[in-house]
Amino acid sequence: MSAFDDLLAFQRQTEALSSIAERLGWDQETVMPRGATEQRAEEMAAMETLLHERRTDPRLGEWLEAAQPQSEADARIIELIARDFTRASRVPARLATELARLTSLAQGIWAEARANDDPTDFLPVLDQVLMLKREEAAALADGGDLYDALLEDYEPGMTGAGLAALFDAMRPRLVALREDVLGAERQPQALSGHFPQETQLRLARICATAFGYDWTRGRIDLAVHPFSSGRWQDSRITTRVVETDPFNCLYSTIHEVGHSSYELGIDPDYAFTPLGRGVSMGVHESQSRIYENQMGRGRAFTGWLFKRMSDAFDGLNIADEDAFYATVNRVAPGHIRTEADEVQYNLHIMLRFDLERDLISGRLDTEDLVEAWNARFLKDFGIAVDRPANGLLQDVHWAVGLFGYFPTYALGNVLAGGLNAAMRAAVPDLDDALARGDAGPGVEWLRENVQRHGGLLPPRRLIEEATGGPISPEPLLDYLEEKFGRIYGL
Amino acid sequence: MSAFDDLLAFQRQTEALSSIAERLGWDQETVMPRGATEQRAEEMAAMETLLHERRTDPRLGEWLEAAQPQSEADARIIELIARDFTRASRVPARLATELARLTSLAQGIWAEARANDDPTDFLPVLDQVLMLKREEAAALADGGDLYDALLEDYEPGMTGAGLAALFDAMRPRLVALREDVLGAERQPQALSGHFPQETQLRLARICATAFGYDWTRGRIDLAVHPFSSGRWQDSRITTRVVETDPFNCLYSTIHEVGHSSYELGIDPDYAFTPLGRGVSMGVHESQSRIYENQMGRGRAFTGWLFKRMSDAFDGLNIADEDAFYATVNRVAPGHIRTEADEVQYNLHIMLRFDLERDLISGRLDTEDLVEAWNARFLKDFGIAVDRPANGLLQDVHWAVGLFGYFPTYALGNVLAGGLNAAMRAAVPDLDDALARGDAGPGVEWLRENVQRHGGLLPPRRLIEEATGGPISPEPLLDYLEEKFGRIYGL
Repeated sequence: MSAFDDLLAFQRQTEALSSIAERLGWDQETVMPRGATEQRAEEMAAMETLLHERRTDPRLGEWLEAAQPQSEADARIIELIARDFTRASRVPARLATELARLTSLAQGIWAEARANDDPTDFLPVLDQVLMLKREEAAALADGGDLYDALLEDYEPGMTGAGLAALFDAMRPRLVALREDVLGAERQPQALSGHFPQETQLRLARICATAFGYDWTRGRIDLAVHPFSSGRWQDSRITTRVVETDPFNCLYSTIHEVGHSSYELGIDPDYAFTPLGRGVSMGVHESQSRIYENQMGRGRAFTGWLFKRMSDAFDGLNIADEDAFYATVNRVAPGHIRTEADEVQYNLHIMLRFDLERDLISGRLDTEDLVEAWNARFLKDFGIAVDRPANGLLQDVHWAVGLFGYFPTYALGNVLAGGLNAAMRAAVPDLDDALARGDAGPGVEWLRENVQRHGGLLPPRRLIEEATGGPISPEPLLDYLEEKFGRIYGL
Repeated sequence: MSAFDDLLAFQRQTEALSSIAERLGWDQETVMPRGATEQRAEEMAAMETLLHERRTDPRLGEWLEAAQPQSEADARIIELIARDFTRASRVPARLATELARLTSLAQGIWAEARANDDPTDFLPVLDQVLMLKREEAAALADGGDLYDALLEDYEPGMTGAGLAALFDAMRPRLVALREDVLGAERQPQALSGHFPQETQLRLARICATAFGYDWTRGRIDLAVHPFSSGRWQDSRITTRVVETDPFNCLYSTIHEVGHSSYELGIDPDYAFTPLGRGVSMGVHESQSRIYENQMGRGRAFTGWLFKRMSDAFDGLNIADEDAFYATVNRVAPGHIRTEADEVQYNLHIMLRFDLERDLISGRLDTEDLVEAWNARFLKDFGIAVDRPANGLLQDVHWAVGLFGYFPTYALGNVLAGGLNAAMRAAVPDLDDALARGDAGPGVEWLRENVQRHGGLLPPRRLIEEATGGPISPEPLLDYLEEKFGRIYGL
């Protein structure tokens, strides 16, 4: 056995254990009896302790030093294991434990604060979380930029400055489009009615099948928040049902099918290695978004969906396919990120990105956070935050320490824009298939150009090879202006 | 930290990991996508490797030597960890791996042999399994009896000779009762009709509730074979549905509720210690059997069930409660253990017990096994084995190396008989409650006298304290003769 073989064998086990931990998380959110929470917490803690021990095992350092890669894939495996080893080793165990304890506590306090619509008790604990995250960032950064050090967990190779430049280039056109759309004379009709859960779930399965979800390696269940979970031969999705709004269930499903399909589309040879998973959160989100938006909310697929929904629900309050297309893509003022449309979504992200960079750098204190949030929201969205639950308290991310995560959502949209332009050029008859309820040709292109590579290529190189050029916001902005210009008659 | 504290902390993690492994097994049998088998095999192998490392960790030896128990519970914890440590350490890693590999292979060959109704390919691999099990038994026995060494895994403290004496004392009365019942003039009517799955599952939930199943710490799902899985705050059951035979689903459910209730009924302070699980397979089976048979198939509960089933299925082909009671307890000739009634079940076990003792001791070769099985079956049951699938090939146990497991089923019946006599004496109005569809008073007595103790008391002492006397087959035999004598008018 060479050092590389030893490294790989050890890593296979770690990957298997990490996959088990993810499966336990799925179980907890879908099927676990509600009285089992304490037991599951102890089980998860045991797994996390074990995984942390393995990620910082001193033998890793020795194997990594001695390992001789025989291929590009070998070299990348070594690089990825080394990156995790270095990062895990830099964070003192005491800090990791304290962060786990505090964020678990903070999540409960956040949930209560949101339910009570009062941030008073939440802000002090958020401040403690922030202090620990800054400490963690300092340990990880090793003298470099604090925010970049955190970002590296979600979007390796990307920097806060790079994202800021990208977002600054997008904001004017997004703000202008938003104003034009909301001020337009032509306004799409909203869908209304009662849409029974069973029928929604049946349609969700049909939509997942339309987007090529592999039911032999997946399943769909109900959960409070939609998510996808697992990889290789077993990537499951969840959805939720609001009986007044079937789009919530259907487009959540298509979105999660995008995430799961990425994991299931990775070269099976990469299973149980660090190559066997999506390469970054931004690339992951590009897959979910291109399934959901560029394909799922396009004119072709919504035409097919209109017929399906009309049949399933015995008619809709929408006249025809064109009107339905406008309804699906209706832009309305609102405070909530997760309910935002394609036009406004990225503005929600930019707000959070700027605020969290300021929090991490120390330019902004948590005690001034509500005011900063509300002022920025009024500036970007033209409406005031009416209550804290519609402002700072709407997202759990910061409570659980996910600083650096938000921008990957907007980056995913940018990448989806670029991939969509390349995919449309390469698959000119894609809309014909989508109009028949078949996303297959698009899925196939994405599988070939993005998904199958897993972690082999770094995000930037992966996207550049797939799109044939550097990452740019132009394709997304052109697509949005074109699409919403037509719908709103601008 | 004392040595005992160290030992306990280490064991808590091991117990958590072992509970996770069991949850993965549940997932595999109920909800796992069918394409995930290879991945799950690798995940389970990683967990097993890890658990084996922990069970044989040399630090355990040091802590066990230095640990100072402060209570009876502490002493028992030390005893149980030491027992597992000694046993795990005696089996060479090479042998454990080989056994895992071979039994996994043998299970597939057994399934094929049963489907093809042909033992030719199965017997050679069974022989290999047997050789490895004899080797394992020799390592475990450390000079003692081979069969006893294997039995210790399932029924600690029990010996093959002790079981043989118990069974020999039972056989004549069981054989005589069987002949009387089958030859009786009065024969109960069989249930017939079509019983839709959804209605069966609804009734299964009602039955589980009647037996006090705690839905906040459990759930029911469909699986190929009924089983219960998990402990402490999360013990789930499965059932199956045969649309011509609702008793299969309903009594499997009550049986598994018995197993799960045992785990859920253990003192919560014992969670994550070796005290926090059922103390032996025999005691476990005593709980499932007393729920299923002595309570579930009694006159009182079947009277209640008759009304429920008549309503749910819009009438039955059975006239009244008394006839229904006879139908539920109908004794019919048959080859299959899992379909056997209370009268014949133990005879099936005794056959297997005698044959497997002879296999382990070397008195019987696998090449003579089919003949030995068939001859014994004819002798005990008066009918010939018509085909291998109805004979040797019906059970998976030996293929997967479970030698020493079968007798715990019959022992469970014996223990259930003794517990039932004590429970009836202590809870004279139990039948009144059962007639209202409420097993609560019986469950409560079992919880107090058996379940809550978990692994604290060794099996024999547990049963002796609960029943107020030594383990004896008399209460079971008296109960069977009385019950079936009445039903069959003997």
